[in-house]
Amino acid sequence: MLGPLLSKLSEKSIVLASSSPRRKEILATAGLSFRVVPSRFDENLPKSDFKTRPEDYATETARGKTEEVFRRLADEGSPPDLVIGADSIVVLDGDILEKPKDEAAAAKMLHRLSGRTHSVISAVSLAVSHRGGQDFSLVNFHGSTQVDFSEIDSAMIDYYVGTKEPLDKAGSYGIQGIGGTFVSGIRGDYYNVVGLPLHRLCREILILADKGLL
Amino acid sequence: MLGPLLSKLSEKSIVLASSSPRRKEILATAGLSFRVVPSRFDENLPKSDFKTRPEDYATETARGKTEEVFRRLADEGSPPDLVIGADSIVVLDGDILEKPKDEAAAAKMLHRLSGRTHSVISAVSLAVSHRGGQDFSLVNFHGSTQVDFSEIDSAMIDYYVGTKEPLDKAGSYGIQGIGGTFVSGIRGDYYNVVGLPLHRLCREILILADKGLL
Repeated sequence: MLGPLLSKLSEKSIVLASSSPRRKEILATAGLSFRVVPSRFDENLPKSDFKTRPEDYATETARGKTEEVFRRLADEGSPPDLVIGADSIVVLDGDILEKPKDEAAAAKMLHRLSGRTHSVISAVSLAVSHRGGQDFSLVNFHGSTQVDFSEIDSAMIDYYVGTKEPLDKAGSYGIQGIGGTFVSGIRGDYYNVVGLPLHRLCREILILADKGLL
Repeated sequence: MLGPLLSKLSEKSIVLASSSPRRKEILATAGLSFRVVPSRFDENLPKSDFKTRPEDYATETARGKTEEVFRRLADEGSPPDLVIGADSIVVLDGDILEKPKDEAAAAKMLHRLSGRTHSVISAVSLAVSHRGGQDFSLVNFHGSTQVDFSEIDSAMIDYYVGTKEPLDKAGSYGIQGIGGTFVSGIRGDYYNVVGLPLHRLCREILILADKGLL
């Protein structure tokens, strides 16, 4: 979708503020040239403050990551043209499920997801430099995808946790891996479940370019 | 999902009757051990015979691939335990869109898909050997996923066709590649759009194993 714009964008300094290999892969799929600068933002917002609007929790975390990286690079004297930060959460019954702290927590989350439909929210925060300077504007958005999880038994869950795949994933599963076999269907953008609302992100970058801001 | 069964299945001779690298990757994701024997079935069924039921067209093609591979291996004296054949089609306004014959055909298909919702049907045909012998039973099923394609302009289409990605893909796009940026959302199994209804396939294999047929 960004194709006709890629040669222009390749002259820009674009930074992905995330160490997630999955986000890196998604962004590369879109054809963007970028470098990775993992954020040092402490992902520790109090979830109870966002009980009724979990998307705000993800957005605030994404914004925190993006701002930290933009400011750090600007302080070092090289403000980038665009910083892309993101945060993904799984929401079930109003509860926010993030990465499990250990194998037992992963198994518990998977038992909760079994046979139910949950939402995956991936929020993105873009920091766009004002003419390459230290000031920036923020553009925040998020995607939400419904995921139908099939009924899975304890043997399946124990085997899956043993593969270690769940341990670094929000909600304790990876739809792009073995966890994909548990998912009978989704409604929304697939890449949003993996970690970035790809189509929406491309749209927002097109809008910024159209406005001459990027 | 197949996890607890994988050690038992690893003793079976499982064959994927498809040369698609994407199907190979999906099947490997499920943890199955298998080898690839591309089918020599001539994929040339008359589409007009299936106008009202395009899923039957995909199923008949999948069945043709599976039967050809099972019979060939059986004739060579080594009937496999399970052959998995598949066929994917894109359906828009009742028309079946397969792989484009050249770049112009790919561009034309993409113009048709722009701003519209289409279906991707992936049919699977399983041939299960009777006690390792030359006789087999068939299990046929298919998945259908709705895909919302965003509006894309000629510049985007021309750029995309120039990447060659569309040329070997039913419907002229790959959701797992650059084509994924065009897709605003889906309803159904993502892997079905890539080429195999992964969750359903796992379920069917579980059923066969439960019945002692595999």
